[in-house]
Amino acid sequence: MTKERMIIEIKEWLKEAAGYIQVSLTNQLTVSQKSGRTDLVTNIDEETQAFFIKKINKHYPDDRILAEEKEFNTIDSLSGRVWIIDPIDGTMNFVMEQENFCIMLAVFEEGIGQLGFIYDVMRDELYWGGKDFGVFLNDQKMSTPKNLSLSEGLLGMNAYMYGENIYSAKEIGRASMGIRISGCAGVELIAMLKGNHIGYISNLSPWDYAAGLVLLEEFGFKYSNIKGTKLSFSKREYFLAATPKAYEDIQKRLSFE
Amino acid sequence: MTKERMIIEIKEWLKEAAGYIQVSLTNQLTVSQKSGRTDLVTNIDEETQAFFIKKINKHYPDDRILAEEKEFNTIDSLSGRVWIIDPIDGTMNFVMEQENFCIMLAVFEEGIGQLGFIYDVMRDELYWGGKDFGVFLNDQKMSTPKNLSLSEGLLGMNAYMYGENIYSAKEIGRASMGIRISGCAGVELIAMLKGNHIGYISNLSPWDYAAGLVLLEEFGFKYSNIKGTKLSFSKREYFLAATPKAYEDIQKRLSFE
Repeated sequence: MTKERMIIEIKEWLKEAAGYIQVSLTNQLTVSQKSGRTDLVTNIDEETQAFFIKKINKHYPDDRILAEEKEFNTIDSLSGRVWIIDPIDGTMNFVMEQENFCIMLAVFEEGIGQLGFIYDVMRDELYWGGKDFGVFLNDQKMSTPKNLSLSEGLLGMNAYMYGENIYSAKEIGRASMGIRISGCAGVELIAMLKGNHIGYISNLSPWDYAAGLVLLEEFGFKYSNIKGTKLSFSKREYFLAATPKAYEDIQKRLSFE
Repeated sequence: MTKERMIIEIKEWLKEAAGYIQVSLTNQLTVSQKSGRTDLVTNIDEETQAFFIKKINKHYPDDRILAEEKEFNTIDSLSGRVWIIDPIDGTMNFVMEQENFCIMLAVFEEGIGQLGFIYDVMRDELYWGGKDFGVFLNDQKMSTPKNLSLSEGLLGMNAYMYGENIYSAKEIGRASMGIRISGCAGVELIAMLKGNHIGYISNLSPWDYAAGLVLLEEFGFKYSNIKGTKLSFSKREYFLAATPKAYEDIQKRLSFE
């Protein structure tokens, strides 16, 4: 199975899932709480994840899966080929806005990101790409964003971190041209890929960043746990991604007291 | 001149202005600072405003104009017919993102909002309407959003007010399902009209809210200076708009010490 063939196949699955999600929005959603009143899951999150798992099990039976919902949300290692999936990233937006959410899917091999897909379903914008062959928006190859500094651009931010000034997030925001809070990691990562935002500070799980990392890597963005260590792929953690210049500016301003 | 004729005419001007703005984005913008490093104006803001002023002066020579840029940014009263214009609302987004900005235009008569237009140029979504005839998205009549409470929906917010907890903005945000910060009043007002957000708290000038008020009024939203008094149309002031239920919830939680 060539990488090209895999890409074609994954795109077909994504389009099929997106069609299903769009139709489902015309019906009543079944919404449940997970860890609290603002941590939601819907029947569509679960059904979309089940759709991808079925496809992967059928076509790639030896591969393993890490995904947001239910028993798929932990994995013991990234050895072999691993699919990392967020069926609906930005579930709160999905429920409240019926837009500003994404499907995210990544393929990793021995811990190295090979393919990444971030699909803004309602805008029908699929950002995708992979190791050593660039980043595309639908059929169009994207160009590398400018390496802007913190003071030159907008910064995506997690509301809690900004409000509570976690690690000086508020001061960092003030040093930028302004913060934006979209409530969706996919939307924020897309804003970076387009060159609209210089960075993103948040608190993320592996399925929130896996696809994004593959694409950010292609464009030379820097990313890590906010403390500068490698992302763990095993738990929710404070996350920083930015242009090389802004990454350095932000690292200097972070305080961990 | 009937109201219907005016609407047709204004829509033509908006489309013409939007075309000009989209073409202008393919060229280098001339960006200047106004009150500080994050308060920007571009040649396109000024040229778009001049375009509307020329049209109004030609077709409605007796009318008066209140608009964001230059010598049009104050008016002594709202007597007679007054046009209130923000040629590019969300100039920072316009410069940084080339999206998430709006043209906003309102027609007031003797202080009463008659027509309102909020145009998301890059999505080609024109939200418009007027006193006693409803709210439309392009050619489609919109339905009235649900009267959700603060705890049931997302709240649009100004970054500074949230970060500094102005009037308890942070606690109010926490009582909602989450805050969103888009950096554009027009985008936030549209989110309310669509029923995606239950309210918006910000610090706004008359041209940031005039068009929105006409449309919010049609849907029965409540709005005022954040202290509950009438909006002045004469200066930047703290602004609150929300569903009737959320407006009451927010008023109870505001603190003005």
